[in-house]
Amino acid sequence: MGASPARRRSPPIDEPAFHAWLADHLPAGRTGRLPLGDDAADLTPRRGSVGIATTDTLVEGTHFLARSPPGAIGAAATNVSLSDLASKGAEPAGILLAIVLPPGTPAKWPQRLVAGAEAAAAREGAHVIGGDTKPGPVRTVVSTAIGWARPDRLPPRSGARPGDVLVVTGTVGRGGGAAEELRRRGPVPDVLARLLEVHPRVAAGRVLAAYAHAMLDTSDGVADAAQLLAAASRVRVVVDEPSLPLASGVRKLPEGRRRAAAFFGGDYELLAALAPGDLAAARRGVVATGTPLAAVGRVERGRGAVLATAAGQVSMPEGGWRPFRTSGRRRN
Amino acid sequence: MGASPARRRSPPIDEPAFHAWLADHLPAGRTGRLPLGDDAADLTPRRGSVGIATTDTLVEGTHFLARSPPGAIGAAATNVSLSDLASKGAEPAGILLAIVLPPGTPAKWPQRLVAGAEAAAAREGAHVIGGDTKPGPVRTVVSTAIGWARPDRLPPRSGARPGDVLVVTGTVGRGGGAAEELRRRGPVPDVLARLLEVHPRVAAGRVLAAYAHAMLDTSDGVADAAQLLAAASRVRVVVDEPSLPLASGVRKLPEGRRRAAAFFGGDYELLAALAPGDLAAARRGVVATGTPLAAVGRVERGRGAVLATAAGQVSMPEGGWRPFRTSGRRRN
Repeated sequence: MGASPARRRSPPIDEPAFHAWLADHLPAGRTGRLPLGDDAADLTPRRGSVGIATTDTLVEGTHFLARSPPGAIGAAATNVSLSDLASKGAEPAGILLAIVLPPGTPAKWPQRLVAGAEAAAAREGAHVIGGDTKPGPVRTVVSTAIGWARPDRLPPRSGARPGDVLVVTGTVGRGGGAAEELRRRGPVPDVLARLLEVHPRVAAGRVLAAYAHAMLDTSDGVADAAQLLAAASRVRVVVDEPSLPLASGVRKLPEGRRRAAAFFGGDYELLAALAPGDLAAARRGVVATGTPLAAVGRVERGRGAVLATAAGQVSMPEGGWRPFRTSGRRRN
Repeated sequence: MGASPARRRSPPIDEPAFHAWLADHLPAGRTGRLPLGDDAADLTPRRGSVGIATTDTLVEGTHFLARSPPGAIGAAATNVSLSDLASKGAEPAGILLAIVLPPGTPAKWPQRLVAGAEAAAAREGAHVIGGDTKPGPVRTVVSTAIGWARPDRLPPRSGARPGDVLVVTGTVGRGGGAAEELRRRGPVPDVLARLLEVHPRVAAGRVLAAYAHAMLDTSDGVADAAQLLAAASRVRVVVDEPSLPLASGVRKLPEGRRRAAAFFGGDYELLAALAPGDLAAARRGVVATGTPLAAVGRVERGRGAVLATAAGQVSMPEGGWRPFRTSGRRRN
């Protein structure tokens, strides 16, 4: 018989009902010492580990649109934070979600968002353990990820040494490829979902952390990450353009747009500096996790990051993930 | 000679400059294994402890106004999260701040916000260890607090037992008193700052956690907390109105407005249920931290929470901190 259209419409969000739904749908309520929905959540540390914590924000209009699928938004918020844990070689444990929603938002919207977040967390052995919902005019999602890392395998951004080889996981320009598709096809559902796709390199990060002198994720693209690495480590980073493992959506672009797309950002791969003698072992270990690893440059004495092209060294292109262009002149 | 007015005006926020300011002004950059501004922050667990994590959101228009002092907003965001840690008897360790700001916000605004957050964290032995800034149309601050608690002293909301005595720290109605002042005097600077004043009962919480069968904070007022405690513990909670230690701003109100103000919310005290035989020891310990502790009711078999007044038992008044009334019909 099916539900009538009126019954199919989701009622507006209501905090007690949402909490009851969460307690029914999240496994954390059945595994932690404190029940889900308590004032705080608990996490038992791995023996001998240090806690690693990171927080990231997605704002409607800047990182997603009103029509973006809520499950993809929840997954993206979670994966973006898991990517930061990955860059420190950490094992993810818990996700906290702070959600701001306009009053009257259909109840299904935050449910789908949390379900997407929980699925993304569970894929990496973690769970949504808590959060907060508040009314406000602009949908905003803040994900905090907490994990555990070995204190002797904790690569900062600041440890790159002259002579190191530069490696990157996966492909370069995945985010730029999605942004190119948005430009071509407009904000259709599958493009909006693809713009939110992030594959945190958690397993690869744990392997690389054993070798990396320095590591960070390429959330704003390889060019931006190379510059951050160079600045934090007080070295010169040379990225070899012909070596970059370009994403398929970028490789086939006309040459004029290819470089901009490759460095557009939104990649969420790992960029690491390690001793050349460790490259073979690191690559074997990373590839065994199902992720490719490419050597894409080197670390030298000096300052700044440059791109070595077929025609010689040039300045790094500007990155900056801004597919919707609603946030003023620059990302702050 | 003094700076010219033009020089005194703060330039707009710029991410690299803000990060440099943070590295200069936050001690976490000099104490953690990972430098401040890395992809994530690290925290070393206390031996034998479990990690406790909680997240809270303040949105402009709902929790503060454009004119609210940024230092008070940063302190409030931090203290609200520390209050949740306090309710689980945890020792605070780190604060992460996710900040959404309109592009062009003066650079001093987030600096003052972070300085307020760091001062509040440091008062309780913690530090701001990381965060995130993103552009967006509505100023929003999400604070995540991480601390350590003893697994054998971790009172959930759900542990209250019939026969327990109900205790509350500090005073009842502090938030309502501030909201009354807003109604009378309007959004003048000192009232806006007072609306953001939160005194997390961290030391008292660590004492109470050794005795409490159940504990939570009264962020939405005692009436709301009593109902949450009753629901989570599947008991009946009786709050004795004449025993409530009313805040001075509420005690002097005309009788008609007194009860509404007392239960308005924004108190951030601790409400706990403990065995009557532990009351004297718990009170001695809490008072030694500089915080009063009052017995304000009892736990019985049954369901729900009621207020025992001089005229007999009545339903709990509605709480709900809504001083600016801009967020629609109800808090979600």
